[in-house]
Amino acid sequence: MANTAPMKFDNPPVFPRGFRCTSTNCGLKPNAKDLALFVSERDAAAAAVFTRNHFPGAPVVLGRETIKGGTLRAIVANSKCSNVATGATGLANARRMAAGAAKEIGSTADRVLVSSTGVIGVQLPIEKIERGIVGLAAQLQSDPMVGAEGIMTTDTFAKALSARVGDATITWVAKGSGMIEPNMATMLAYIFTDADFDAATLDRMLRAAVHVSFNMLSVDTDTSTSDTCAIMANGLAGRVDEKAFLDTLTAGCIKMTETLARDGEGAKHLLRTTVKGAASEDDARRVAKSLVNSPLVKTMVHGADPNVGRLLMAVGKVFDVNVNATTTDAWINGHAVVKGGERLDFDEPALRTALKDEVVDLVVSLGSGSASATAYGCDLTSGYIEENAAYYSS
Amino acid sequence: MANTAPMKFDNPPVFPRGFRCTSTNCGLKPNAKDLALFVSERDAAAAAVFTRNHFPGAPVVLGRETIKGGTLRAIVANSKCSNVATGATGLANARRMAAGAAKEIGSTADRVLVSSTGVIGVQLPIEKIERGIVGLAAQLQSDPMVGAEGIMTTDTFAKALSARVGDATITWVAKGSGMIEPNMATMLAYIFTDADFDAATLDRMLRAAVHVSFNMLSVDTDTSTSDTCAIMANGLAGRVDEKAFLDTLTAGCIKMTETLARDGEGAKHLLRTTVKGAASEDDARRVAKSLVNSPLVKTMVHGADPNVGRLLMAVGKVFDVNVNATTTDAWINGHAVVKGGERLDFDEPALRTALKDEVVDLVVSLGSGSASATAYGCDLTSGYIEENAAYYSS
Repeated sequence: MANTAPMKFDNPPVFPRGFRCTSTNCGLKPNAKDLALFVSERDAAAAAVFTRNHFPGAPVVLGRETIKGGTLRAIVANSKCSNVATGATGLANARRMAAGAAKEIGSTADRVLVSSTGVIGVQLPIEKIERGIVGLAAQLQSDPMVGAEGIMTTDTFAKALSARVGDATITWVAKGSGMIEPNMATMLAYIFTDADFDAATLDRMLRAAVHVSFNMLSVDTDTSTSDTCAIMANGLAGRVDEKAFLDTLTAGCIKMTETLARDGEGAKHLLRTTVKGAASEDDARRVAKSLVNSPLVKTMVHGADPNVGRLLMAVGKVFDVNVNATTTDAWINGHAVVKGGERLDFDEPALRTALKDEVVDLVVSLGSGSASATAYGCDLTSGYIEENAAYYSS
Repeated sequence: MANTAPMKFDNPPVFPRGFRCTSTNCGLKPNAKDLALFVSERDAAAAAVFTRNHFPGAPVVLGRETIKGGTLRAIVANSKCSNVATGATGLANARRMAAGAAKEIGSTADRVLVSSTGVIGVQLPIEKIERGIVGLAAQLQSDPMVGAEGIMTTDTFAKALSARVGDATITWVAKGSGMIEPNMATMLAYIFTDADFDAATLDRMLRAAVHVSFNMLSVDTDTSTSDTCAIMANGLAGRVDEKAFLDTLTAGCIKMTETLARDGEGAKHLLRTTVKGAASEDDARRVAKSLVNSPLVKTMVHGADPNVGRLLMAVGKVFDVNVNATTTDAWINGHAVVKGGERLDFDEPALRTALKDEVVDLVVSLGSGSASATAYGCDLTSGYIEENAAYYSS
């Protein structure tokens, strides 16, 4: 269902030339890593997209200012505390975090992107972070998974990918498990490459890739106040073909989107919802999102129960899209279940078995045009409830 | 938080003059009641609003046609099977159900409103229903709860209310527990009165009342394909003051909305979210709905955990409403938790205790105008997951 051809990813993931990272425990969490630093050995062209939430965290406010320069040397990120709803003190703390990292690596604060993720409404323990940053430059190493570990919150595993384009490498590092329906970006996703592109080109390519990947992801319809997706290109591999780069960038963003959905809080299934035959791409995206977000569709997938009326319900509740019931068809993991808006007499035991697959693909054809879109999510389980009825850590 | 003054409701609820009902088991469910009939002893002026889902059930398609006449003698409703996604056969079965009830009570099919609720995508066992209708006229009695029992699906209790306006009575009967974010109406809600109003006036008043009650209800963001809210006025009590009638109608619709929210699948709390100080009523409604629908707010209420950052997140994710973070204040059950977009240093143990109340009121003031709205919902618990991962019954 991906919008691009299958792509080969490195196993294990590696960094492009000139990028290194490290992570540590600086005392925000009892034991686990809570501070990560990603550094390019030379200035990199950079672009980023951020949350559209009206209550952006201080790091997002600062990041929008920083990224205007189009150049980054490093990204410093902490988990456990998101530095959101923290006012002027929060913004000052974000600036101190950038300055601390800049001093440690011998750069300037305007070339350091800051991220914080975790509980909202708690001031950052900035002294702990400043002390934690000191000495990190000496620990930089080449495994992107080590950086990914430092930004985990409710994630159950660290997330990094890499793939090749010509002589260049692209590496994705991300975190995110709940409060995920990004709009412009996901929780935190960093992309590193040694390909040579200017900031404007990177920005254009990043937005195109995010449009069909992270922006089509939803774990729980809740849009984080910290969403950030940034790309750094240090040029050490020289120029590569732009079309090939964009294809790989997009494929990797989709793969990372699927990885985040698989690790959605409490998730047991990756749920992909594809809408075809729509009058416009926007229509296709809205209906695909409605399907991937419907609690009754998500619990149907969890229960491996072919209650296909719920599919029609979730398509039909998108009031502002013109849906024609009599031309609507649907499939679950390849089994035709609806034709012309009516439930087909399908092989129910076979469908129950198919619904037990780790990946569940719901495909709906609206029969009103040629546009399509795919959204990414997961099933809804009591694991999500348990995690979020208890998650708090001030 | 209700938009009207507190209203006194009868205990137990009674019917207006001239209305009676009954319910029975006609074999759709193993044992429980699955067929209900509501009858006025003379023709009643009537109005109704229906789901906006693009896949309306056959009874909704027929009901839109029936209600054009502005006159009803009876409502016949079955549970267990919703007669949705059933094509031409489904529509023919809905007509047979209306004709059967009309014959039983000595009226015509164009004066009988039909409802079906339950699983989507299964043909109605119409012969069982036709046989079940025969003899119901002789069983009509005066307790509205008996009719309410016949339309329950996952509801844990039957739902009826009544209140007085002048010499007249208004009685509400409803069902609904999941697949509830009505738009134009809730699952099934019937309102009976002996006041004397014409169909056009009833229609206007019904829409006004539904706008601030059922249309502000959400259990799970999922809009049923069967939503119907109908009112019948048989005039036996003569004219009553229109303003007083509308006030009582609205108060009862809000009370029934709260009753439905309290019985949301798996719910332990009634969640009311009020947005004040908005630039427009539409803005207030959108933000209130975002709060009441946020899984992270709902699990916070379930966990009685004052993670107030989630309130800001849910306000801030309404991208198309102009929210000013610095003028946003918030309260949880009367405790101030946010001032000017920043988390206050509140008494956390006291707030944890307050969150354990059966009713949780979240109030957000946007500081950008004078419009307000209240939405109604419930917490999200593993009971919802268990119910919906298993609910199927073809």
